[in-house]
Amino acid sequence: MRTFINVSDIGPLDKAMSEAFEIKNDRYKYQHLGKNKTLMMIFFNNSLRTRLSTQKAAMNLGMNVIVLDVNAGAWKLETERGVIMDGDKSEHLLEAIPVMGCYCDIIGVRSFAGLTDREYDYAETVLNQFIKYSGRPVFAMETATVHPLQAFADLITIEESWKVEGGGLKENTPAADHSSLHTSPSTLHKRPKVVLTWAPHCRALPQAVPNSFAQWMLADKDIDLVITHPKGYELDPQFVGGARVEYDQRKAFEGADFIYAKNWSNPGVTNPADYGKITCEDRSWTVDTEHMSWTNNGKFMHCLPVRRNLIVTDDVIESPNSLVIPEAANREISCSVVLKRMLEAL
Amino acid sequence: MRTFINVSDIGPLDKAMSEAFEIKNDRYKYQHLGKNKTLMMIFFNNSLRTRLSTQKAAMNLGMNVIVLDVNAGAWKLETERGVIMDGDKSEHLLEAIPVMGCYCDIIGVRSFAGLTDREYDYAETVLNQFIKYSGRPVFAMETATVHPLQAFADLITIEESWKVEGGGLKENTPAADHSSLHTSPSTLHKRPKVVLTWAPHCRALPQAVPNSFAQWMLADKDIDLVITHPKGYELDPQFVGGARVEYDQRKAFEGADFIYAKNWSNPGVTNPADYGKITCEDRSWTVDTEHMSWTNNGKFMHCLPVRRNLIVTDDVIESPNSLVIPEAANREISCSVVLKRMLEAL
Amino acid sequence: MRTFINVSDIGPLDKAMSEAFEIKNDRYKYQHLGKNKTLMMIFFNNSLRTRLSTQKAAMNLGMNVIVLDVNAGAWKLETERGVIMDGDKSEHLLEAIPVMGCYCDIIGVRSFAGLTDREYDYAETVLNQFIKYSGRPVFAMETATVHPLQAFADLITIEESWKVEGGGLKENTPAADHSSLHTSPSTLHKRPKVVLTWAPHCRALPQAVPNSFAQWMLADKDIDLVITHPKGYELDPQFVGGARVEYDQRKAFEGADFIYAKNWSNPGVTNPADYGKITCEDRSWTVDTEHMSWTNNGKFMHCLPVRRNLIVTDDVIESPNSLVIPEAANREISCSVVLKRMLEAL
Repeated sequence: MRTFINVSDIGPLDKAMSEAFEIKNDRYKYQHLGKNKTLMMIFFNNSLRTRLSTQKAAMNLGMNVIVLDVNAGAWKLETERGVIMDGDKSEHLLEAIPVMGCYCDIIGVRSFAGLTDREYDYAETVLNQFIKYSGRPVFAMETATVHPLQAFADLITIEESWKVEGGGLKENTPAADHSSLHTSPSTLHKRPKVVLTWAPHCRALPQAVPNSFAQWMLADKDIDLVITHPKGYELDPQFVGGARVEYDQRKAFEGADFIYAKNWSNPGVTNPADYGKITCEDRSWTVDTEHMSWTNNGKFMHCLPVRRNLIVTDDVIESPNSLVIPEAANREISCSVVLKRMLEAL
Repeated sequence: MRTFINVSDIGPLDKAMSEAFEIKNDRYKYQHLGKNKTLMMIFFNNSLRTRLSTQKAAMNLGMNVIVLDVNAGAWKLETERGVIMDGDKSEHLLEAIPVMGCYCDIIGVRSFAGLTDREYDYAETVLNQFIKYSGRPVFAMETATVHPLQAFADLITIEESWKVEGGGLKENTPAADHSSLHTSPSTLHKRPKVVLTWAPHCRALPQAVPNSFAQWMLADKDIDLVITHPKGYELDPQFVGGARVEYDQRKAFEGADFIYAKNWSNPGVTNPADYGKITCEDRSWTVDTEHMSWTNNGKFMHCLPVRRNLIVTDDVIESPNSLVIPEAANREISCSVVLKRMLEAL
Repeated sequence: MRTFINVSDIGPLDKAMSEAFEIKNDRYKYQHLGKNKTLMMIFFNNSLRTRLSTQKAAMNLGMNVIVLDVNAGAWKLETERGVIMDGDKSEHLLEAIPVMGCYCDIIGVRSFAGLTDREYDYAETVLNQFIKYSGRPVFAMETATVHPLQAFADLITIEESWKVEGGGLKENTPAADHSSLHTSPSTLHKRPKVVLTWAPHCRALPQAVPNSFAQWMLADKDIDLVITHPKGYELDPQFVGGARVEYDQRKAFEGADFIYAKNWSNPGVTNPADYGKITCEDRSWTVDTEHMSWTNNGKFMHCLPVRRNLIVTDDVIESPNSLVIPEAANREISCSVVLKRMLEAL
């Protein structure tokens, strides 16, 4: 595997999932793969979960890790040719990126959307420069439009939870091994209904998490995805092409097995001028106990960090049905699978 | 061992001391214990010695280390329930702390006293949140009221020095092995007199170091502790309950074998309104050669960093009787014992 | 090896070069040397290449690495004795440096010239304090006046390139093994002409890179060094004592096999009052294709980061004759040799 950006990069999902559970069962099993291999983590933006879980996954695999914090303001890279670089940019990306590639075997990049120039963001300009010029396998640690390590961890979490629930039948179904829901059809009586719901926020946030979540859920044919959001917040078709959208949040929640809440700013699909703006502040979308009562005793999910009582109430996130901590824990697992695949392909 | 905050956490002191000397003799002896174990060091405040010595101790034990610098200003954690988080706090500690616990086996926390709210500081609010919510063993890397890694290192330093001195008799007593002063009574003719002295400073400093120093010295029955400070600077009784306080600095110094200098701001014990304030600026408390001449050829100690010619003069800190560098070096040893104990108990 | 500052520290160059090629051929060959040894990298200034390549080299050798970023502004060290430290300096270097030495086996220091006080800069005050007080082997990771890891990497790059060229004869000379140009005279028909050329820049830069480059090239008797720069930019005689200086850039370039471009501020050799100033902004010195056409199909070199179209044009730096990325890659190799030598001498 040379890049990890879209769900297609990971190949057949059932194989990826069985590797995930194998690694969760023995995190150090592939430690020999990383010997004398170096991961370089490059952060153009802050990170807590991604920084910690990726570092942990790499160390589990026996890798050396170098973390590079790029203060985007202080270290501006020139990207154009022909410019006389007598301003505030002290290095050109055509030198900086190959140099970073010199000192490592695999590169992870975090670079958020600027939310002002849709074309620039959706072209994944920074990520693609690393892919083109570093000479190394590159994976997204949340970039302008995607956060696949999160979506993969979310899928692992849904599958784990669903098996415990006996496939939604709430029976005491045996689930002793970690065989995936795809391979044990007899114990799984229906496809879980997973709802991606927009929720209000006080700051304009990127679309990376909902984009990847939708893409991964749609790729899993055993999942029934519904997306709900205010009108105008339509996600980019390249990620949600065939997904059901239900603008009535209550109708979307009815019978749901999993509620995945997330804010995102206006994707500018319906009205390009709205790109990156907050065009809805309706707090009736906040997920509270009444919302959850519409579901099929649904689980609550969020990628964190979460603004309580804005995205979700204290009661819901603290309830036994909240999966937010297991989701975070599975970030170590999803990243381990990705790094293992990249190490195997070196 | 699940927490390391107070001297009681380390159990019998003679056993802890003999482990310290065993490790000092062979720092890599317990390297197998840390294999595939991860230490997370979380800094809410700056650090030099603690950062370096803790990292070194963990690596000696074969652990992986993740360092997380939390700029307290930039990453404010919400701590209350029910708050609508639409302000500057982007994450609630009830999510942040369990998540950090997901990616490691042991957690070290540095979080200084704010020095404005005595109750909040002395409740060790941040430290206790990590203990309660992280699901991991937690040790203090200087918190609001304690700095036990320093006090443990100081005790190691005193014992090493005392043995070299032949137990204060200045005879050429054999001290070939590293058996502790507790177990070789025949070579130790008296209890060392250890004086904790306040000294002036230009900034308001926490009481963590003197609190722990007093607690550890009092726990060692072979040490004769005297505390001296200006009136009004009484330390909290939970740390110094039974200690002798001598307000006349000269009387305190007379016959002392060890002088441990440190500034602290007003602990607010006598007058709660003074908490965290500088209520004495008397520079006659600065430890100079005249002060040291009152002692029994005493050794000079300080935890560092130290303001020269405010806490102590150049002459004293540079004299052969200064133990400030050995104290710093023993931070690696005290931390190694703590991590070893925590690893054994995982 | 206890210090690495000047070319003389590395001993005979042919031996150093053969070690470099041996390590480049098998970077992990000396991994046993670094077991349980700790490198401390101390940065008073920013770094990209040096930070990454030094960390990589240390990990290749099996070392543990601790990186300490000292924000020079925030953590001011007092250096004078007798000062009452009641200002903004919270620690004296006489404590800080020995303490850092406690927790590691080898120290790397980056500390740039301030460019205001020539005497202070050229005395290498900070570096020498580490050598004097840390008790550890110390190497320069670019200090006030030298950057020997860069110069050593440049020499490796020149030798590699020269061998591929068959010693400048542009014949298809066999160069199968990595024996140095010094030991295979039969395949090497002439000494390469290496030109160190000043180039314009918008900010005042230190002289560390040209100083070390000149020193290392002069130490290699198989290299024919010429230095060219505007009048008044004469480098310090301790580094370039016997070097040919040609003020006419075109004459210098004629017949050159390697062009090494670099800006430096006025070294204050001719006029001490000019030290650290920009006294020439002549952009005719920018290296462009016309400049390169004067050479013997010369290679272009620069230590990076480089300001394009100020130091060098896009065309030249992107041409097949550009060696800037191989130079950066060889930083891992030069540092590996230095750390290996220091580990062997512990």
